[in-house]
Order: sequence, then structure tokens, then C-alpha cells
Amino acid sequence: MVHATSPLLLLLLSLALVAPSLSARKCSLSGKWANDLGSNMTIEDVNENGEFYGTYDTAVADYPQNIKESPLLGFRQNRARKPTFGFTVRWKFSESTTVFVGQCFTDRSGKEVLKTTWLQRFPIENTDDDWKATRASSNFYTRLRTEEE
Amino acid sequence: MVHATSPLLLLLLSLALVAPSLSARKCSLSGKWANDLGSNMTIEDVNENGEFYGTYDTAVADYPQNIKESPLLGFRQNRARKPTFGFTVRWKFSESTTVFVGQCFTDRSGKEVLKTTWLQRFPIENTDDDWKATRASSNFYTRLRTEEE
Amino acid sequence: MVHATSPLLLLLLSLALVAPSLSARKCSLSGKWANDLGSNMTIEDVNENGEFYGTYDTAVADYPQNIKESPLLGFRQNRARKPTFGFTVRWKFSESTTVFVGQCFTDRSGKEVLKTTWLQRFPIENTDDDWKATRASSNFYTRLRTEEE
Amino acid sequence: MVHATSPLLLLLLSLALVAPSLSARKCSLSGKWANDLGSNMTIEDVNENGEFYGTYDTAVADYPQNIKESPLLGFRQNRARKPTFGFTVRWKFSESTTVFVGQCFTDRSGKEVLKTTWLQRFPIENTDDDWKATRASSNFYTRLRTEEE
Repeated sequence: MVHATSPLLLLLLSLALVAPSLSARKCSLSGKWANDLGSNMTIEDVNENGEFYGTYDTAVADYPQNIKESPLLGFRQNRARKPTFGFTVRWKFSESTTVFVGQCFTDRSGKEVLKTTWLQRFPIENTDDDWKATRASSNFYTRLRTEEE
Repeated sequence: MVHATSPLLLLLLSLALVAPSLSARKCSLSGKWANDLGSNMTIEDVNENGEFYGTYDTAVADYPQNIKESPLLGFRQNRARKPTFGFTVRWKFSESTTVFVGQCFTDRSGKEVLKTTWLQRFPIENTDDDWKATRASSNFYTRLRTEEE
Repeated sequence: MVHATSPLLLLLLSLALVAPSLSARKCSLSGKWANDLGSNMTIEDVNENGEFYGTYDTAVADYPQNIKESPLLGFRQNRARKPTFGFTVRWKFSESTTVFVGQCFTDRSGKEVLKTTWLQRFPIENTDDDWKATRASSNFYTRLRTEEE
Repeated sequence: MVHATSPLLLLLLSLALVAPSLSARKCSLSGKWANDLGSNMTIEDVNENGEFYGTYDTAVADYPQNIKESPLLGFRQNRARKPTFGFTVRWKFSESTTVFVGQCFTDRSGKEVLKTTWLQRFPIENTDDDWKATRASSNFYTRLRTEEE
């Protein structure tokens, strides 16, 4: 009978309605991002293992005239709504490699930001020069809105 | 006639003989490695794009009893004999992520070493706590010889 | 006679007038600064060896209720108009130590900013735990204007 | 009477005898140290505020022919037997500045080691280049025994 609708059932129904919007608020890495230096990156879909591919188009380099879009590859943690992630960029215009590690945040207004810290490794001739091979810094990224959106 | 053998030809012949051993000395990431903390990792074949997969079995963690072997994924530069590389580890027993960046060296005796620097990112609840989210350190790895080898 | 005033002399005169304001634009560390987290620091006069003292009043800590103003001590390079500098903070409410390294900038409008990167070291019980002892991050500081100014 | 000597008194006497050697095992920064790169440093007495001066004689530099002994200045935490510390080196042959942070360890055999992580800041012309201004690495130091000792 209709009036037998239990409080439990109502709760489950409510959750079913609410869950999509909650899950929609999980911070998503996929899409186009721009950082505070004017560099852009595009991250493709994250698969069920947390693996993702993308491309990095840096605005800054030791020899800016050589810059080429470069591939990136990384992992995102799966469970958290504000997941940590990491990725490697193999520069196509340099023998160096950069790794980024960070976390994806969505604030109450829905604004997304990626906070990252990175290390760039330069090739050196022998291990005695290892002390000078690594740069460190931080960047943050906000979602790049395209005109169609 | 014997005396017609030019010095140039001899040089080319020598190079042809020497080249394979030189190229064999290109530092290879693939295989099993152990670091100075007792952590092990296995890196599978590096493909033609410089991409590689592997597994990381850490000896150290904030909660060592939880340690599980975890996947890694990264890029190696292709051209250099002592290539730089980077990879991401998605810890299966933690919501943190670690990125390593480094370089592969082979010394004259053929001994291989990976010199790396890493960043570990912990999830934080909001961006105000970003200042405390990232650990940094260095490790080196030597090739782990199995008994069969 | 007036028309004997050479263009060179005029140039020299102009430089003499301009130079003090140019040299006044050397970025000065001394004073009160606030960073992007709400932490404040006061740097006292830098002596002729580039040495300076000050106090750091952090807005963030692992146990914020314990926060106490803490002393800082460092060196600034002397020659450049945008000098690099470094300092150590001995936290009075923690057994950790933090070092900051950075550079002092003045933009054309006279706005000053300190760009810094820092490392925080936590005491660990033995060297096996060294891998987890160091945090890294970045902060920038702008000059804190007091009401009297 | 002699046989009234209490066990408590004996304990206190033992502690009085043992305490100096225990306190002697507090890791001391003062003295001459050498690191894994062949760089040497001398740290003078640490005062009651934890403040210390010293000199750094690096074995490595971007332009090794320019190397000059350079002053260092820092703080050590006071209470712990394995204190954390930090210091700044103002290079006399470069406009860069380096900060070290670390911890002083004494193992059971009395062997002392300083584990450090450092950041080196290079002057850049404007804040757009801030991303490339900072190097990071690690070093450890062992006490340098002079022949007289």
C-alpha cells in the first residue's frame, strides 16, 4: 500500500537524487587548464585505473623559441573527491624531464583549481654533477573555458 | 692488395665492431631496482615513445603495516645514453601520490645507478593547508641482481 | 653662454638627478611583510655583511594553538638591485626548523614582492626515517603598510 | 651508618655519573664537516639562542675556478639530542644564495652525521622567470677528523 512507504525508502530515494550532484562535485582532471605562467595543458579522460594522457604546451623554457607541445602521462587517485595526482612531461624540445604532483580542488562555487609542485631534471654528464641537476617550483592551474562552453 | 687497406676503412671497421658495445652501454631503465632504503621497483620495457609501466614495492611508509605493491607509470627521454626520466606512483594503501624524476647512469665498469629526487603529495581538505601537503627527498637505485642471472 | 651647454653635460646632469631614485629602488628587505597565507614577518636592518635578524609570526602550523612568534636570521646578497637572500626560522613552538630562500623584487610602480621557496625539517628518531622529514613549498610576501605610513 | 645507603641514593649517584656521558652524546654541530661531494664546512660554537656562524668551502660550483670560502649563519634547535637546524650561505663568488635544513644524528658507536636538504636561489631579472630560479638537492656530512685529534 502506498502509505506504507518507509522512511528508509524515502532516504534511499533522496540519496539517489542527491548522489549525482555530489559525484558531479568530484574534482575532475579532464579538460583544458591554464597556469599562472600562461602555460596550457589538456588532460584526456582518466581511465578506471586512474591513468591519464595529455599534452602540455608550456609558455616558458630556457630556450623559448624551441618550445613544442609535449606529451604527459600520469596517475590520479580514485577515491577522494579532491584527489591527488601526478604526471610526467617528456619535453620534445629538451632532454630534461619534469614531474608534477598535486591535488584537484573544487570550491563551493564550483571553481576548480589544481595546486601542483614540480621538479625538472636536467641531464648531466656524470653523477658528480648530480647536485645541480634538479629545479623545483610550484604552479596552480585553473580550468580554461573555451568559447563554445 | 693488402697495403691498399685505407686507414679510413680500418676506422670504419673498428667503429662497426665497437658500436654495438657502446650502444649496449646506453643506460636501461628496464628491470628490477633497489634503493638505499630497501625499497624495490620493477620497470617493464620502455616503448618507442619512451613510456613505461612498472610496480613499486616500498620499504617505508607512514603506516608500514598497510604497504601494498603499487603501480608506476612514466616517461623516459629517448636520445641520450644517460637519459632523464620521470614516473608517478599511485599508492594502493594511501591517498597520496609520489612523483620521481631522475637520470640513469652507467659507469665505466658497467655499474648502473638511478639518481632520483621525489615529491609526495598528501590530500588536504582545503587549499589553505596547501603549504603542508608536499614532502621532498632523494633516493638512488642500483640494479637488483637475481640469483639466476 | 647658454648654448654652450653640451648634450653630454645635460645627460650627465640628468643621470645625477635620476641616480638617487634608481638606487632608492634597490629592493629592501627591511620592514614588515605579509604572505599569501596571512603570515607576517619583520626584518630588521641588514648590516654591511648582508646579515639580518627578524621575527616570524606564522598564520599556519600543524598545531595552530601553539603558535608563538619566532626568531629568524639570515643573509642577503649585497650587490644586486634585486638581491637573493636566505634565512632560517627557529620555531619556538616546535622542534622543526624552516629555511627560506628567495629574491626581492621591485616593479616599475615601486611595488615590492619577495618570492620565496622553503623547506621545513622535522626531527626524526633515526636516519632510516630521513625520507619523511622534509616538507617543501613556496610563498610570496608583500610589504605590510602600517597605518602611520 | 654505612649500611643505611639507600637504593635511591645509589640510583641518584649512578645518574650523576652517567649523565655527563649521556649529555655528551647530544649531537654537536660545532666543528669541521665534509660532505659526500668533498665540500667542507666549519661551524663555530652554537650560542645559547641556538645561533651559529661558520664558513663553507664548496667543492662544486657552476664556475669552479671562482670558488671562494663563504660565510654561513643559522639556527639550531636547543632541546633535542638530535636537533634540527638550518643555515644560509652567502656565496662570495656568486649572486645566488643557498639555504640548508637538516638534522644532527649520533649513532650508538658515536659516529655523527648531518642529513641536509638544500635550495639554491639564482637571481633572475623579473618575476616571470621565477619558475627557473631554484635548485634543490640533498647532502650528508660527516665529521672531518684533523690529524692532531
